[in-house]
Amino acid sequence: MSLVTLDDIRLAHKRIGSYIHWTPVMTCAALDRISGAHLHFKCENFQKIGAFKIRGATNAVFLLDDKEAAKGVVTHSSGNHGAAVTQAAVWRGINATVVMPENSSEVKKQAVAEYGAKIIYCAPTDQDRQKNADDFIAESGATFIHPFNDVAVIAGQGTAAVELIADMTSSGKQLDFLLTPVGGGGLISGSCIATAALSPDTVIIGAEPQNADDAKLSLLEGRIMPVKKAHTIADGLRTCLGEHTFAIIRQHVSQILTASEQQIIDAMRLVWLRMKILIEPSAAVPLAAILANKKQFAGKRVGVIFSGGNVDLDALPF
Amino acid sequence: MSLVTLDDIRLAHKRIGSYIHWTPVMTCAALDRISGAHLHFKCENFQKIGAFKIRGATNAVFLLDDKEAAKGVVTHSSGNHGAAVTQAAVWRGINATVVMPENSSEVKKQAVAEYGAKIIYCAPTDQDRQKNADDFIAESGATFIHPFNDVAVIAGQGTAAVELIADMTSSGKQLDFLLTPVGGGGLISGSCIATAALSPDTVIIGAEPQNADDAKLSLLEGRIMPVKKAHTIADGLRTCLGEHTFAIIRQHVSQILTASEQQIIDAMRLVWLRMKILIEPSAAVPLAAILANKKQFAGKRVGVIFSGGNVDLDALPF
Repeated sequence: MSLVTLDDIRLAHKRIGSYIHWTPVMTCAALDRISGAHLHFKCENFQKIGAFKIRGATNAVFLLDDKEAAKGVVTHSSGNHGAAVTQAAVWRGINATVVMPENSSEVKKQAVAEYGAKIIYCAPTDQDRQKNADDFIAESGATFIHPFNDVAVIAGQGTAAVELIADMTSSGKQLDFLLTPVGGGGLISGSCIATAALSPDTVIIGAEPQNADDAKLSLLEGRIMPVKKAHTIADGLRTCLGEHTFAIIRQHVSQILTASEQQIIDAMRLVWLRMKILIEPSAAVPLAAILANKKQFAGKRVGVIFSGGNVDLDALPF
Repeated sequence: MSLVTLDDIRLAHKRIGSYIHWTPVMTCAALDRISGAHLHFKCENFQKIGAFKIRGATNAVFLLDDKEAAKGVVTHSSGNHGAAVTQAAVWRGINATVVMPENSSEVKKQAVAEYGAKIIYCAPTDQDRQKNADDFIAESGATFIHPFNDVAVIAGQGTAAVELIADMTSSGKQLDFLLTPVGGGGLISGSCIATAALSPDTVIIGAEPQNADDAKLSLLEGRIMPVKKAHTIADGLRTCLGEHTFAIIRQHVSQILTASEQQIIDAMRLVWLRMKILIEPSAAVPLAAILANKKQFAGKRVGVIFSGGNVDLDALPF
């Protein structure tokens, strides 16, 4: 039996549909010329909170029963998932708490606070983070919303591929490939389930930084491999897979492509300059992988999920 | 008799419609909250060559008869208008020549060359530029395409407002205000004609940098005033009006708002961060003016033309 089914994704889409954007699919003649492929970009950078993460978080938060929900939700991501959980909690009218290291940047603290989260500061270690979250859960009864290793979150993330495939189908087109970035694997897992059911001839490929190629190694080794270095500008992709996401990826994904730091930066710059849209480094990894492997995609119709657009303009790589 | 009529703009739209994009109109909940107005952004940053200038240039180039066209076109703008004239000439299958100072940046030289223009280098003075253009015209018979003071160019620029008003009307909405940047005045002139005819209750307002407030002064003085300083990041707005654009502006525009350099930079940054799209400094001037004059626009429905998205990522103001 599957962990997550197309039905779960369909129900998730109904549950979250009035809160999130059905984001546009963009094309770019210049990038088609440069890549030699027909590229279709699903623009989750235009999504609420600026990233696809709002899909899974909203599904998880709205799946709680009223009694659970009344006790609030908690997470320890201060990035897109933290913003997503907080925004979803605000929509549901419940409390969100984010545990974050006291040495986090002011920008991150401010962003989380602006969305409306209560912040618990901890020492900058994984253990103290987890301990603070566990203590808070024990005391408040709040529900922990995992950033990816959660079936409700995976189902929610799958709704982006459902929209992309629906938009392609309604314009009479079928994708040969669909590429998504891979961090913890929530997005690609949901995309796999949706694609296998709705567009079975589309080959799904993961993309990750060379410097955080744990998903590629995990597929090779047949077990979840840790991230060794993770010195990558693609800060959304520094995590390793979870058991649920690994199980789904193992079943559906046969290829993970990687890109170097320079390739990621170049791809991001290309999108900014040619498409006039902001994507964050993690979102640029699939395009970087396509440009580094042009032969495989020559003449093909390729879907790419631009996963988010939250960039720090004061710390640009160019 | 009017210099340019709605019919001219309608015909221009037919002439150029298959070459250019009908660009999207975007809204942004965060910017509505910040401004207190209902803002509708016409995204000419997504236009061919990355700016509205392609509309006027394409109309002018395609209006030439075959004999004129065969001799080619020439301009001395190395910015958006130069790119636009060159692209339009490529579409028509004729030669484009751009006269530019030999000390222009490599980026500009490369961009003009990439679009396919022949470049004539001149000394970095207005006189030498004009002399080189005149000499080339005398020798080749090429047609000079003025960046704004040309009825065909003005009619072409008016097509952006036609699209914006059509999209508003089809969603059952009417603009209280329409703001455009003002440089030489081509965009606002075309927008005036279109708006007066199609949405007569919409008040049209120009926006320019405080440091290049020649249009405001020209309206006050009743004659074309030169640009005094023009030390502005909004490099598309450093020119003064022409006789045609001044005549139209004088008839239709009662208010020109200005914005400081810091306000322009802040508005540009806000759009990048909140809307996840790239606009160039000139395009940010109307939003900067709205945010500096919130009271006037409170609760109103306001159209804004984002005139272009061509930025130098190696010379950002933040």
